[in-house]
Formats: sequence, C-alpha cells, structure tokens
Amino acid sequence: MSAAQASGSTPIRAIDVIRKKRDGGELTLAEIESLVNGYTRGEIPDYQVSAWLMATLLKGMTRAETAALTDTMLRSGEVLDFSDLAARKVDKHSTGGVGDKTSLVLAPLAAAGGLIVPMISGRGLGHTGGTLDKLEAIPGFKVGIPVAQFRKILETIGCCMIGQTAEIAPADRKLYALRDVTGTVESPFLICASIMSKKLAEGVDGLVLDVKTGSGAFMKHEEQAELLAELMVETGERMGKRVVALITDMDQPIGHKVGNALEVDEVLEILRGNGPSDLRQLCLELAAWMFQLGGVSDGLAEGRKIAAQLIDSGRGLEKFREMVELQGGDLSVIDHPAKLPRASGSQEILSPAKGYVAAIESETIGIAGVILGGGRERKEDSVDPSVGIVLYKKVGDAVGHGEPLATLYYNSESRAARARPLIEQSYRISEAPPASRRPLVLRVIQGSGGN
Amino acid sequence: MSAAQASGSTPIRAIDVIRKKRDGGELTLAEIESLVNGYTRGEIPDYQVSAWLMATLLKGMTRAETAALTDTMLRSGEVLDFSDLAARKVDKHSTGGVGDKTSLVLAPLAAAGGLIVPMISGRGLGHTGGTLDKLEAIPGFKVGIPVAQFRKILETIGCCMIGQTAEIAPADRKLYALRDVTGTVESPFLICASIMSKKLAEGVDGLVLDVKTGSGAFMKHEEQAELLAELMVETGERMGKRVVALITDMDQPIGHKVGNALEVDEVLEILRGNGPSDLRQLCLELAAWMFQLGGVSDGLAEGRKIAAQLIDSGRGLEKFREMVELQGGDLSVIDHPAKLPRASGSQEILSPAKGYVAAIESETIGIAGVILGGGRERKEDSVDPSVGIVLYKKVGDAVGHGEPLATLYYNSESRAARARPLIEQSYRISEAPPASRRPLVLRVIQGSGGN
Repeated sequence: MSAAQASGSTPIRAIDVIRKKRDGGELTLAEIESLVNGYTRGEIPDYQVSAWLMATLLKGMTRAETAALTDTMLRSGEVLDFSDLAARKVDKHSTGGVGDKTSLVLAPLAAAGGLIVPMISGRGLGHTGGTLDKLEAIPGFKVGIPVAQFRKILETIGCCMIGQTAEIAPADRKLYALRDVTGTVESPFLICASIMSKKLAEGVDGLVLDVKTGSGAFMKHEEQAELLAELMVETGERMGKRVVALITDMDQPIGHKVGNALEVDEVLEILRGNGPSDLRQLCLELAAWMFQLGGVSDGLAEGRKIAAQLIDSGRGLEKFREMVELQGGDLSVIDHPAKLPRASGSQEILSPAKGYVAAIESETIGIAGVILGGGRERKEDSVDPSVGIVLYKKVGDAVGHGEPLATLYYNSESRAARARPLIEQSYRISEAPPASRRPLVLRVIQGSGGN
Repeated sequence: MSAAQASGSTPIRAIDVIRKKRDGGELTLAEIESLVNGYTRGEIPDYQVSAWLMATLLKGMTRAETAALTDTMLRSGEVLDFSDLAARKVDKHSTGGVGDKTSLVLAPLAAAGGLIVPMISGRGLGHTGGTLDKLEAIPGFKVGIPVAQFRKILETIGCCMIGQTAEIAPADRKLYALRDVTGTVESPFLICASIMSKKLAEGVDGLVLDVKTGSGAFMKHEEQAELLAELMVETGERMGKRVVALITDMDQPIGHKVGNALEVDEVLEILRGNGPSDLRQLCLELAAWMFQLGGVSDGLAEGRKIAAQLIDSGRGLEKFREMVELQGGDLSVIDHPAKLPRASGSQEILSPAKGYVAAIESETIGIAGVILGGGRERKEDSVDPSVGIVLYKKVGDAVGHGEPLATLYYNSESRAARARPLIEQSYRISEAPPASRRPLVLRVIQGSGGN
C-alpha cells in the first residue's frame, strides 16, 4: 500500500500498471486503456511505457489481456466500415519474409474472384521487404491515398493497396516506434496486438494470416510462430472475425527474386501463369483460404482451382492492371517488365563446389538486399527500387563447381562489396542432397468458430 | 545479425545492450559503461534506459555486472579522498526503516571513538524516514554543505552529515529518478549499485550496512535482504573496502518515536543514556561494527563496551553538540528538547481490547507518518518536522482495554483523520502473548576479506 492509495484517490496510475505487469499480474481492460490511451494522448511519457513494454515482453500476457490491448489500439483511431459494400471483405497479412511478394498477387486475384480486399500494408522492416516499397517500384504508383479514394477504388475494382493512414490505430504507430528502439518488438503478444489492431481497423470480415517461420522469419522457431498464430486467430475471433493462420516455411527466400522491382517482375510472371513453383503454390494456397473465408468457394480444393483459373484466364493480371491504373502507376511496365527500374551493375556469384544446395540463410540474404539499398539501414534512408538479388539455385538443387548460384544487382560498388560476402556465406553446399524438406505450409490454425 | 552489424560498424548500441540483457546475457563492463555514461551525458534517452532497467530487474545481474555497474556509477562523478586524514574513515548505511534514527546517534558516537564519519545521507523515501529530514528538524541545521566545508568539519570534529552533492555519482541521481517512476526500484542489483556507488564515493575505508527486513522494510523477506547484503558486501570487497552487513529486524518501528523532531528527541534520549532498549541495542551493535572495521576495537564485545562508555560519559552527546554547532543548528534544543518543533494537535489511540500486542504493521505506521506530513506524498511536498507518532506499546507488551497504544501529533485535522485509522489498523492485539520474537540482529554477512 502506497501513501497515495491510502489517501483514497483512485485514478489508475501508470506506475501501478507497470508494477502489476512486472510482478506477473493480469491487467484489466481499464488498466490497459488507461496506459495506452494516456500514451497516445501524450499524457504518459515514453519511459514509463517502455518499462511496461519490457515487462510485458518478459512476463507475457493472457489471451484476455491480448484482446484488450488489441481492442484498445484498434479503437485509438478510425475503424473503416465497408459494410455497405455487398461483397465479403477479406484481407491477407504476412508476418514478413524474404522475397515474399504474395500480397501483390493476392489482392488482385481475390478481387478478381469477387472479394473486396482493402489492403493496408507496411514498409520494409529489418531484413524483410515491404509491400509498399515493392509497389512503389512501379513508376508513379501511389500508396498514400486518402480513405475516401480508397473506398472509391474498392467499390470500382474490389482491391486497393495503400499505406497506413494517420487515422488508423495511432496507438500502434506510436507504440511500434517505441518498441523498435527499446528491444520490445519480439513479444508475440505485442506483435499480435499490433497486427490485429491495424487489420481489424480495415473493416474486414475475414483475414488470412501467413505466419512465417524459419531462418528468414522473425519467428525462427515453429513454436513461436504457432503461439503468435494462435494469439491472432483467437483475438480475431473474440472480435467476431473469421480468421485463419497458415504457418509457412521461411527457411529460404520465396521465389527467385529479392528486391523491389525484381519482385514486381516475379509477381507479373506468376500472374501470367509462369514463375517459380513455390511462389505459385503459396499464392494458390493463400487465395484458396481467402475464398474459403469469403464464402466464394466450398472447400480448399475448389478455392485453389478458382485461383488457378483466375491466373490462367488472365483475369488476375487484368485486375492488377486496373489497380495500377487507378493508383497512378505506369501501365507500360505490366506488358514490358524491362521498363521497371534496373540497376546499373551486376555480379554473378558462383558455386565454390560441386554438390547440392543444403541451405540458404534467408535472413542474411535479406540483409544483403538491405545493404544493396533495397531496404533501409536507418529509418530516414530512401529505398533503391532497382537493386536486389536473383537466386538461381534453391534448397535441394544440384549445382556444378563454378556454376552461378545467384546474381547481385547494384548501383554502388561499395554496397556490392559489402553485400557479396553475405550472399556467398548464406549458401551452404553439401556433397549429398539434403534430407527431405518440410512442406511450404506447415500447419493451419483455425479458431473454434467453424470457419 | 542486423544490417548495421553486417556493415562492420562496431560502436556499442543501446538497443543491443537492452536486447542482450532482455535475453538473459551477461553484460560486459564496456557495455554497461556505454549505456550508463551515455545516459548520464544525455546521449541515450530515458525510454531506452527504462527498458534496460526493467530487463535488469526481471533478469538479474551477475556479481561481475553488479560490480561493473557500481564502479561505472561511482566514477560518473567526484570520488572524495580523505586519505590525508590519519584516522580510519568508516560510515554506516541503512536500507531504510520506520523510526530508524540510528545514523544521528552513530555519526557522533563513532567520531567520539576516534573514527572519521563522512556521512552522506538521503531524504525520506516512500514510507521510510530520511536522515536529512530528521536533521533539519533541528532549527538552522544545514545539510547542503560544500565539499570543502565538509572536509573542514571532518578534520575538526570527525563527523559531518550532509545531503548528496551534485558532484557525487550523478549517474545514480539520474538513474534513481528514472527507476522511481518506472517500477524498477526493487531490484537488489540496482539497489546495491545505487547505495554502494554513493557510499564508496565518500572515500571511506570501511562501511557497516544495516539491511532491514520485515513489514516496515523495503525487503519484506529475509532472503531478499540477505541477497542484497551479500551483493553489497561482495561489491564493496571487490573495490578493496572493508564491508559488513547486518540483517536486522524491521517488523516493528525502531524505538518509540516516528516523525522528524520526535526522532531527534529520541536520539537525544539515547545519547543521554536513556531511551528505548531496542534502539540503544541496535546503536551499540552498529557502533561496535564500525569500531571493528575501523580498527578501534578488537572484537565486538570490546566495541560494544566502548560505545556504551562513550554514551555514559556524555562524549557522544558532546560530539553531537559540536556537529550541530558547526552545521549551523540551534544548540538550545540539545539541552531543551521541548524547543524542537511541536505539533499543535494530538490524539490518543486506545487499545480496543485487553491482551498483548501481537504485531505492528510498520509500513502502515510509516505511511501514516507520511500522511501526517512527516514525509512526502509527492516529490515537491515540503516536510512538517513537528508531526508524528509516539508508540507506547511494542510487540509483546501487555495492554489493557482502553489503554493508550499510541499518540498521534498533527497540524491538520484532515490529515489526522486519514492517518488515524491506519495506526489503528496497524496494531494487532491478541489474547495470548506472541510466540518468541526474532532477535534484533538476524544475521551478519561478511566478505572473505577477513574483517
């Protein structure tokens, strides 16, 4: 009992909330609201919230606390409402990987299948790429679109891909910036609240979560990914949404291309019915779940078939073209991908031995991409859309001595010199073929809602 | 591996230090120095340090880390050097209790015994009283004395009691203020570094630590107190000092009086050879250890005898008088304690039953004292020297129905109304006498240095 408590005053004090979490207690909704709303309004200082964040990271949260935090962050800003639009609103979110360009395929594909996809995405984070950075590799493409225009585009073509607006979940923006500099990013509870508060603010009915695990993911271990997936599914269901989470493999980059313009090029390959099989398979799987949650298909097999047909018929690519047009992008790159920004220099990386690709350290590949200029080493850095890495060999592939493993595209010799050894290090060549690899989709986590 | 690390830059980043501690790693001296010195210079923001403090509280520190932190904080400011003074420099520090006024007895007593006592003390903290607040109950007594004058007084009479100066351990002052508002006060490692950095900056050869445990202490459990005591003894020894820690009982207030002027009055009683036996015993014990560490006595029994003789001969009181005089205090209160500040109102608290005092909830008594105005509810509050509580009955005493347990001295009816029920609640009366009570000194913890 403190003197202040003994004196009979009862407002919730930040220090008491911090202490309660520090000591392993379960916070009430009122306590969480008091802290988060006080912080968002600028009444509670950074240093108290960072102490609470660290206590939360180390002590964890119950499911009820996680839902309360998500709800508080969601309600800190505008919650979009597209209930006047007849079609189901379904989105997809990935926890971040290397070479993960599925969002650019899925938004138009799902819209072509009759869903509405109000997708609000982020920039590159750490070693992983960002959907907004990829979209901006298309000359003229605008991601900073006001909500009214966002709605208009959704009404017109069914999909629109934008960046977070100032009105949506301002508590998350402020908390995320603080977590980033205080070592408190990695809590599954805080990650869940951050992702779900933003995604539920989009006004969706259903949400497909791609929770990545492996060397290129934030969640290196499958159990961490499963915990996060369970938290997000349960939190979404508590809020009346249909949510499914796929735990997917991120032990090597997805597809062959890493880098903003290179990834747009690979998206166009997929939408033309070509492209790497792992990327195509992941897109079909995620699209099938979007169709399932959105009531477009009955069963996953049917959903996969619909998705494949939308690709083969060219309707997915057509929807992508409509989206690029309405968002101000240069349409000519769609038919002539060679018009996408191109780096001036390139270097091949050759295999030091004959054998098989046993592993690719994906995080290192991601960091090499950042160093080339494809991501940000510091927040204020600008992104070079043209640079990146093309991987010719993936895990399990046979490779001859001196055969090219990858090509590095760059605009700065010094950056190339820093990135090259990382790519070399990331490949592990073995004499024998690697043991059987794990499947692309490791597990599917659904709520009890019977989706 | 982050992009910054991969790029070959090597300065220690605060975020990496936070993450390492968060993940349970052992920090190097260089990492601790980087963080603490960067913070003290204003280069590292509060919010990063508070995240590190919370991670430290929850993950702990090794002995080497604790010593490194203490050393870094110590060297953040001026380290006093009294090595030119021939006599041994020995201080005593208490972790804080209710009614603990031993410092005011011990500084003059040890100086009268030939030691030099360069005592730098603090203000009331939470429910516990502060030595500076007690000294200031003597009209005119100055605790804000420059180092040059501090040295002069020590040379002249052997003891001087002042508040922390801006030059001593500035890192601790800044860290303590942050800990206070971020729920990170309670870490034994951080407490150790805070106490020891300040005490070792006093330039002492030896240090007697009174580590309190029980209902009125910060460390409620004996094991917590033992851990803190061990940490402080080991840290002090690593730095070449003679350190001993006494774990002492704080399950009831020490002596009969709680409140600044009331406690000065009780100090004078002790120095006249009267006063409560528990307080006298604790003073003799602590003084004996000071004499032991300072080489004045050979063995504790001799030390206790010397201390008792210094009281009985009046030499302790005489030294107290000299100190009050040189620090600007009103000497008349020494011979006429009734001239100390007196509260205008008083209320007796009567026993609700016949029986025995089974327990006194000391923290509640301490909080009642704060509410009466004897401590600070907010940092900016001023302290009323005259208010307080006199306890007539202590644990084990027999009491009749309606017999006075305590008297409350106050200057504000509303404060008295808030404090009174706390004092009533803090007394537990039982029919039978309580079981045997634990001794005043529970354990003595010494280093391996052979003190």
